[in-house]
Amino acid sequence: MTERSPQPGRRPGNPDTRETILRSARELFADQGFASVTVRQIAAHASVDPALIHHYFDTKERLFLEAVQFPIDPSMLLSQIFRGDLAGFPERLVRTFISVWDDPVTGQAMRSLIRRAASDPQTGRLVKDFFTTQIVATVRDVTSEIIDPDELPVRASLVASQLLGLALVRYVLEFDPLHTASPESLIAAIAPTIARYLFDADLPLPTDDPPARDTTH
Amino acid sequence: MTERSPQPGRRPGNPDTRETILRSARELFADQGFASVTVRQIAAHASVDPALIHHYFDTKERLFLEAVQFPIDPSMLLSQIFRGDLAGFPERLVRTFISVWDDPVTGQAMRSLIRRAASDPQTGRLVKDFFTTQIVATVRDVTSEIIDPDELPVRASLVASQLLGLALVRYVLEFDPLHTASPESLIAAIAPTIARYLFDADLPLPTDDPPARDTTH
Repeated sequence: MTERSPQPGRRPGNPDTRETILRSARELFADQGFASVTVRQIAAHASVDPALIHHYFDTKERLFLEAVQFPIDPSMLLSQIFRGDLAGFPERLVRTFISVWDDPVTGQAMRSLIRRAASDPQTGRLVKDFFTTQIVATVRDVTSEIIDPDELPVRASLVASQLLGLALVRYVLEFDPLHTASPESLIAAIAPTIARYLFDADLPLPTDDPPARDTTH
Repeated sequence: MTERSPQPGRRPGNPDTRETILRSARELFADQGFASVTVRQIAAHASVDPALIHHYFDTKERLFLEAVQFPIDPSMLLSQIFRGDLAGFPERLVRTFISVWDDPVTGQAMRSLIRRAASDPQTGRLVKDFFTTQIVATVRDVTSEIIDPDELPVRASLVASQLLGLALVRYVLEFDPLHTASPESLIAAIAPTIARYLFDADLPLPTDDPPARDTTH
C-alpha cells in the first residue's frame, strides 16, 4: 500500500496503519512503561517502518498522547503555566486545569480519559507511567532551583491527588456544590493546597518508611 | 414462594427476591435520588411486600449500601471518627479512610466501587446522591455547633475531592510514591488540608456566583 505524501499540519495518514501503530503503542507503553519503549520497538511490533511513525506522530510523546486520546499537550501547558512569578504558579495551575476541564471539547475528552483510566487497567497504567515519568520530568526541569528534585515526585503526586480528586468530584461524580461552583471561587479555595504541597519546606513528605506503631487503631 | 423465617444476624433470604429488590433499588435511587425514594416505591417496583424489604435489609440506608456494594457503614464509621477532640478529627478521618482502603477485603470493594462510580453513570449518580444527602446530613448532625450547617455541603465536598483523589492516585492509578507511602506519613501530609477545608473560617468558599472577569486568560 502506498502511503500518502506528508501533509502540512495534521497528518491523518492511512487510518488502518495509524490504528495499528496506536494499538501497538498502547500495548507496549502499558507493558513496559513510556520511558523504556522505543519508537523502533513500536514499529517492529506494528510491522511498519519507524520513519512512518515519525511521519504520522512526530515524537514518541505525541504518539503517546494520541494513543490515550489526551486532548492537549501537557508539557506545552506546563511551560506556559511556569512562565510568570513563582507565587502565582499554583493559581495558574488550578486555573488552567479547570479551564481544560470546563471547555466543552477538551473537557469531554478528559472526562472520557479519567473514566477509562479508573476502569481499564491498561489505560490506568499508561496514565500513571506518563505522569510519574514525563510530567514529573518536565516540571523538574523548570523547577529544579526552587523544588528539591528528590522531593518533586512525592510533591507532584500530592498535587495530582488534589487535582484529579477535584476532576472526579466536579466533572465525573458531579457532587454539589463543587459541580457548579465558579472557577475563580474554586481557585481561591484550592490553590493554597497546591502551594503547600509544592513549596512548603515544613510539609511532612509521605515516604515508604513503615510507621513505628500500628496505624489502624 | 414461601420466604424463609428470619435468621439472627445476616439474612440472605431468597437470592432471586433479594436481587430483584436490589435491582429495583439501584434503578429508583439513581433516577430519583436516595432521599425521595421510599421503601414502599421500591417494593412496588420489585413486586414484593414492603415488609420483605425491611426483613432482608432492615433500613433504606442498608439497602442502599448493599445496592452499591459499599463494604462498610459510613454513618457508623463517621460517628466513631467524631468521637474525640475536634482538633484530632481530620487526622482520625484520614487514618480511618486509609485503613478502609488499605484493608484487603474492604479495600478491594472500595476500588471496585470507585471504578464503577467513575465509569458507570448510574453508580456515579448513586454515590453522588448518597454523599450529598446522607453523608453530609450525618456530619451536619454531629458538627452543627462547630461548622456552619450552610457551609457544610461545600466544605464536605472539598474534603471529598482530596480524599477521593488520594484514593484514585494511591489505590487505582497507583502513582509513585503515594502508592507505597506509609499511612502515618500520608496522614501527616493530608490531614492539614482536611482541617483547612472543614474548619478554617478564612477559607474562601466555592460558590456558584459567576466571576466578575473572564477566567480563561
